[in-house]
Amino acid sequence: MAQTPAAGRVTLAELAAEAEVSLSTISKVLNGRADVSRKTRTKVEALLDGHGYQRRASRSSKSGLLELVFHELESAWALEIIRGVENVAREHGLSVVLTESGTRHSPGPEWVEGVIARRPAGVVLVFADLAHESRRLLESRGIPFAIIDPAGDPAPDVPSVGSANWAGGMMATRHLIDLGHQRIAAITGPEDLMCSLARIDGYRSALNTAGLPFDPALVRYGNFHVDGGRDHALELLAQPDRPTAVFAGSDLQALGVLDAARQLGISVPDELSLVGYDDLQVARWSSPALTTVHQPLIEMAEEAARMVLMLRDGEQPKNTRLDLSTSLVIRQSTAAPPAG
Amino acid sequence: MAQTPAAGRVTLAELAAEAEVSLSTISKVLNGRADVSRKTRTKVEALLDGHGYQRRASRSSKSGLLELVFHELESAWALEIIRGVENVAREHGLSVVLTESGTRHSPGPEWVEGVIARRPAGVVLVFADLAHESRRLLESRGIPFAIIDPAGDPAPDVPSVGSANWAGGMMATRHLIDLGHQRIAAITGPEDLMCSLARIDGYRSALNTAGLPFDPALVRYGNFHVDGGRDHALELLAQPDRPTAVFAGSDLQALGVLDAARQLGISVPDELSLVGYDDLQVARWSSPALTTVHQPLIEMAEEAARMVLMLRDGEQPKNTRLDLSTSLVIRQSTAAPPAG
Repeated sequence: MAQTPAAGRVTLAELAAEAEVSLSTISKVLNGRADVSRKTRTKVEALLDGHGYQRRASRSSKSGLLELVFHELESAWALEIIRGVENVAREHGLSVVLTESGTRHSPGPEWVEGVIARRPAGVVLVFADLAHESRRLLESRGIPFAIIDPAGDPAPDVPSVGSANWAGGMMATRHLIDLGHQRIAAITGPEDLMCSLARIDGYRSALNTAGLPFDPALVRYGNFHVDGGRDHALELLAQPDRPTAVFAGSDLQALGVLDAARQLGISVPDELSLVGYDDLQVARWSSPALTTVHQPLIEMAEEAARMVLMLRDGEQPKNTRLDLSTSLVIRQSTAAPPAG
Repeated sequence: MAQTPAAGRVTLAELAAEAEVSLSTISKVLNGRADVSRKTRTKVEALLDGHGYQRRASRSSKSGLLELVFHELESAWALEIIRGVENVAREHGLSVVLTESGTRHSPGPEWVEGVIARRPAGVVLVFADLAHESRRLLESRGIPFAIIDPAGDPAPDVPSVGSANWAGGMMATRHLIDLGHQRIAAITGPEDLMCSLARIDGYRSALNTAGLPFDPALVRYGNFHVDGGRDHALELLAQPDRPTAVFAGSDLQALGVLDAARQLGISVPDELSLVGYDDLQVARWSSPALTTVHQPLIEMAEEAARMVLMLRDGEQPKNTRLDLSTSLVIRQSTAAPPAG
C-alpha cells in the first residue's frame, strides 16, 4: 500500500472502487457502524490509511459523551480519577462513559470499536497501554485522547498528565531527615517503572544533600500493594540495626509497613516513622493517620480531560506532557526518632 | 388536566393542536431533544401526562448505553458498585454512562434530561432519592430502572436490590458471643435509616437468644464514617466497666474504633474484639485485618443491572425487591475476651 503524495485528496467513490465495496460500506466503516464484517472493515481501514484519508474531526461530535478507559477498574486510584473526569465533563455538559479495557473479558483492543461507534468528544485513558493500532484508529477519526499516567513513561508525543515523582521522593525524605532520622529505608514499586526510579532518586538526593550515606541495603523494590510493604518491612525491621523511618512508595505499602510494625510490637510513630505516597482516602482513615505525599489524582484527571476538550476544539495544548506538583501532607505517622 | 379514559388513544397531531405547538416540537419533546425551551417542554409533558400518552418502550434503544446514577460518587462503596454494573454491561455489549446527581453542581433532577436524550437501555440508581417527577419521566418513556439501596427503604413498587441487614447484625453478634463476649457494644448509622435499625435488631436478637441482657447504654447511633466510630468508641471505652467487644455498623466506623483503641492503649483483638460491616477492600488492608460482615456490593450491582435489562426485554422480575445474603468474614480483629 504505497503512500500517496496527494494524501487526503482521494474521494470516497475512488476508495469504494479500489476496495470493491459499495460507497455505503465505506461510509459505514467511517462511521464505526457494527454491521460491517471485520474482514471488510480491515480492508477498508487499510485503504483509508494507505491514502492518508483524514476523517472530519469529532468536533462535530453530538453524542455529548466523554470516554474514560481504564486498564483495570480495581486500582485504588480509580474512584478519584473518575471524580476528576466527571467534574470536567459536567462543566462542559458531557457525560462520562466508563470502559475497562484490560480484563479477562476484554483483553484486546475491542474497546476502541465501541468508542468509535459512540463518536465521543474525546477519550481519557488511564495507564492503558495505547497500542499503535488503537492509537491509529482514534487519530484517523479525529477523536482526541490524553493519558493519565502516574507511572510516568508514555510515548513522548502522546498528550499525558502525571505528577512530580522525583520531588515527591525528595520532600518525603527531607521531612524525615528534618525530624532527625538518619537510617531511613525506602520501599518502592517495580524497578522497571519510571515512577519508582524517580522517587528513589529523589530519596537519594535528599540523603546526599544532607550528607547522609545512601545504603542500598535499605532500598527495596516490589509491588505497590499492602503485602509488598508488609513483606519488605518484616525483613527491614528484623535487622539488628533497623531503620528508624520508612519511606513507602504507596499508601497501600505504608499500610503493610504499619501491619509489620504492629506484628513486631514496634510503635508508630514513637519507634518508627512512616511516610506513604498517593494520599488516598485510606491514608486519613489509617491508625495512626499517614503522613504521605499527596499525588493530585483528581486534578490530574481534570487536566487530562481538559486537554482532550482543547484538542477537540482544535486548540493545541502548549505541552503534551504535564506533571502536576506533589506535596507533603503531615499527619500522625512521623515523629522524631527514639532517643539513643 | 382531566384524566382521559381513552388514555393513550390521543394522536400527536391532537396534542400539538392542544399545546399550540408544531408536530415537530411534540416529537422533539418525546425524543428528549435539547432544542426545545424548558417552558414548552413542561407544557407538552403536562399534556402528554394528562392524556396518559405512552411512549414506545426503549426496547428499541440502539444507544448501547446503560446508565449508572450516583447521588454522590464519594461513597466508599462507589467503586464496587461501578464494577458490578460494568460486569453485566459488558456481558450484554453495553457501555456504562456515569452520572452524579447530588452534587452542588447539579442538585436537582437535571440528570433525567440527559438520560432521556441518550435513550439508554435502562438506568441503575444508587441510593438516589428517585423524585416522583423523575420517576414519571422515565416511566413515560419506557426507560426501565432499578435502585441499589443498601440502606433498605425504597418505595415498595420500585425495583430494588439490597442485602440482609438483620441477618448481618445477628451473625456478627453471635460470632462475638461464641468467642465468649458478654459486654458487646454496637455502633451503627443514623437512627432513621432502616439498615441501622435492622442491624441493631439482629444484634438484640442474638443477645436475647443467648440469654444475655440488652443494655441500651451500649448502643450508639451516629454517622457511618471513621469519626463516627472514633467518637463513640472513645466514650464507650472510657467507661470503668467497658465493653470487651464492639460491633460497628461499617468498616469505616470500625477503623475509627481501631484508632480510639490505639489512642487509649487498648490492644485489638487481645483486649477488645471488633467486627465491621461491608467488607470493603480497606477491611483487608487494616491492621489488624477486620473481621466483618460481607455485604455483596458487586453482586447487588450486578443484580440491579440484570433487573433493568429484564425489564427492557419486556420481562417482569418475579420480585421487585431483592435482598442478597450477607456473610461473616473472620479475620484478625476478633478473639476471646481477656481473662478475668
